[in-house]
Amino acid sequence: MDPRDIDLAYDCVDIYQVGSRNMQNYSLLKEMGKTDKPILLKRGMSATIEEWIKASEYIALEGNENIILCERGIRTFETYTRNTLDLMSIPILKSKTNYPIFVDPSHGTGRRELVLPATKAALVLGASGIIVEIHPKPEQALSDGAQSLNFAQFENLVRELNLLKKFHI
Amino acid sequence: MDPRDIDLAYDCVDIYQVGSRNMQNYSLLKEMGKTDKPILLKRGMSATIEEWIKASEYIALEGNENIILCERGIRTFETYTRNTLDLMSIPILKSKTNYPIFVDPSHGTGRRELVLPATKAALVLGASGIIVEIHPKPEQALSDGAQSLNFAQFENLVRELNLLKKFHI
Amino acid sequence: MDPRDIDLAYDCVDIYQVGSRNMQNYSLLKEMGKTDKPILLKRGMSATIEEWIKASEYIALEGNENIILCERGIRTFETYTRNTLDLMSIPILKSKTNYPIFVDPSHGTGRRELVLPATKAALVLGASGIIVEIHPKPEQALSDGAQSLNFAQFENLVRELNLLKKFHI
Amino acid sequence: MDPRDIDLAYDCVDIYQVGSRNMQNYSLLKEMGKTDKPILLKRGMSATIEEWIKASEYIALEGNENIILCERGIRTFETYTRNTLDLMSIPILKSKTNYPIFVDPSHGTGRRELVLPATKAALVLGASGIIVEIHPKPEQALSDGAQSLNFAQFENLVRELNLLKKFHI
Repeated sequence: MDPRDIDLAYDCVDIYQVGSRNMQNYSLLKEMGKTDKPILLKRGMSATIEEWIKASEYIALEGNENIILCERGIRTFETYTRNTLDLMSIPILKSKTNYPIFVDPSHGTGRRELVLPATKAALVLGASGIIVEIHPKPEQALSDGAQSLNFAQFENLVRELNLLKKFHI
Repeated sequence: MDPRDIDLAYDCVDIYQVGSRNMQNYSLLKEMGKTDKPILLKRGMSATIEEWIKASEYIALEGNENIILCERGIRTFETYTRNTLDLMSIPILKSKTNYPIFVDPSHGTGRRELVLPATKAALVLGASGIIVEIHPKPEQALSDGAQSLNFAQFENLVRELNLLKKFHI
Repeated sequence: MDPRDIDLAYDCVDIYQVGSRNMQNYSLLKEMGKTDKPILLKRGMSATIEEWIKASEYIALEGNENIILCERGIRTFETYTRNTLDLMSIPILKSKTNYPIFVDPSHGTGRRELVLPATKAALVLGASGIIVEIHPKPEQALSDGAQSLNFAQFENLVRELNLLKKFHI
Repeated sequence: MDPRDIDLAYDCVDIYQVGSRNMQNYSLLKEMGKTDKPILLKRGMSATIEEWIKASEYIALEGNENIILCERGIRTFETYTRNTLDLMSIPILKSKTNYPIFVDPSHGTGRRELVLPATKAALVLGASGIIVEIHPKPEQALSDGAQSLNFAQFENLVRELNLLKKFHI
């Protein structure tokens, strides 16, 4: 995203997302720090947890502390999944920051059948939210179909999370 | 471990553990396949999930299908934790094998304070057990003290797991 | 770097460098494609070679094919060096693109004593140039001193490269 | 390899190779330390340089210092090559040990066309030898054909190395 687009988009968006590829785009981060909307900061593909937190400080130092950190998987040697979802980053971040932590189980695994277990674990580990891809007919999706839930699967996800939340947290 | 030690140890052990560094020590795996005791097969430090399953087949092909697979973290660029505990390997393994899956949150993180959250997530993801290090006085332990629980912390772990298990699974 | 700074800097620079953290900052890449100055595109910390080449296409598609690709090391589990300098990327890139290839042995290793051997290997593998850090008194440098050559070491580097070049290429 | 096979093979072999998967098979390493034949110790797939050197000490401590260290590539996120050949391990090892260093450009890259450039760089970096796969008709090889040279390619390799050696070292 171009820093110049922040103003253009302002009236249309509820939240800005800094994608994984821009986690260390410092000029963009600083501009994000000047808005009054929430910033969802995705983890870089091979960012350490410390680098991720430091990236958030570029935003906060400009005055915007309305930040959400979003785990989306790291790059490893594994080829079965699209990325290796680093669920343990959740409790580590919680011990080091006060920002809410989100998880992206769709990009983080690249596989529909892993979205539900990843989400349940994320909830138990203390995540505050998820970003999840849904599509009425995932097999016809133009992109990311393999990791998208259909509506029935999404309903099931919500039901399971409510159950887990009721008893556990 | 030397294949020759298997017989020596037979009467003293309830279970054999194949450590991470020996996950692809095929002559050892084959010998393990000839015993009638359970084998706990730890994941290699940079083993893909497919390689890990194939390693288990060396044991099973010799006749011993009493195998436990134990996730203990993989090697990444992260330096905050000793390893990156790959919790998502649990649901993947469950879709591909029928063996019970254990997790080693102590070696997998190297940090005492991460053992409880890792264990809770492992349970929710379907793990059948954990290997956890405890010590009456971890700060005096000769090795691995930083990742060891004291007795009170271990009691708390068991209590939390029982709660989670009661409601959730 | 902010895309808005490209014009500001235009009269002062001979070449623009896109740093490792911005290799996939697509809005910046596109702006780089509109200038008529050379662009040195550093490899992202965990970028595959294919992703790196694709990043260069964002520049070229806007009309600027005056591109230099610069290998600067990738992120691995190794802790002895700052990065793992991936020298084999040089012959691979040469088989896939026509751009000149540079190497940054200073950041790529983080260690002064490895700069000379890395540079010699890079030359033999077909690199067209290097970026190397020098400082009159490296031990007093405010940053990156451990990987900087002093003037005598730099002279020696040039002498060794000339020798190797004379006989070999 | 099983430690029990060392004696069996003794009269038939000039050298023992400890493969990548057994670099940390300590009982095997100790047995290797008791023979009087050279040991070629391949680097583990995700072994740090320090771990590799420590593995060699298991052999040396038993009395056999006739050790060759063989770089064969490490595991990274790159998928274009079979492994990422870590050529910079050569000068690092040379500063830390006195053992001869070999390189395996065939397994280290998995691609025939990269064997010659990898070998030339290895020579310039100070390697003492290579292990290279050749086959009269690589396209018919039962395994590893893609990384094997045919006889003409091997002759060319030797010619190029002799040229480089004559002028350079």
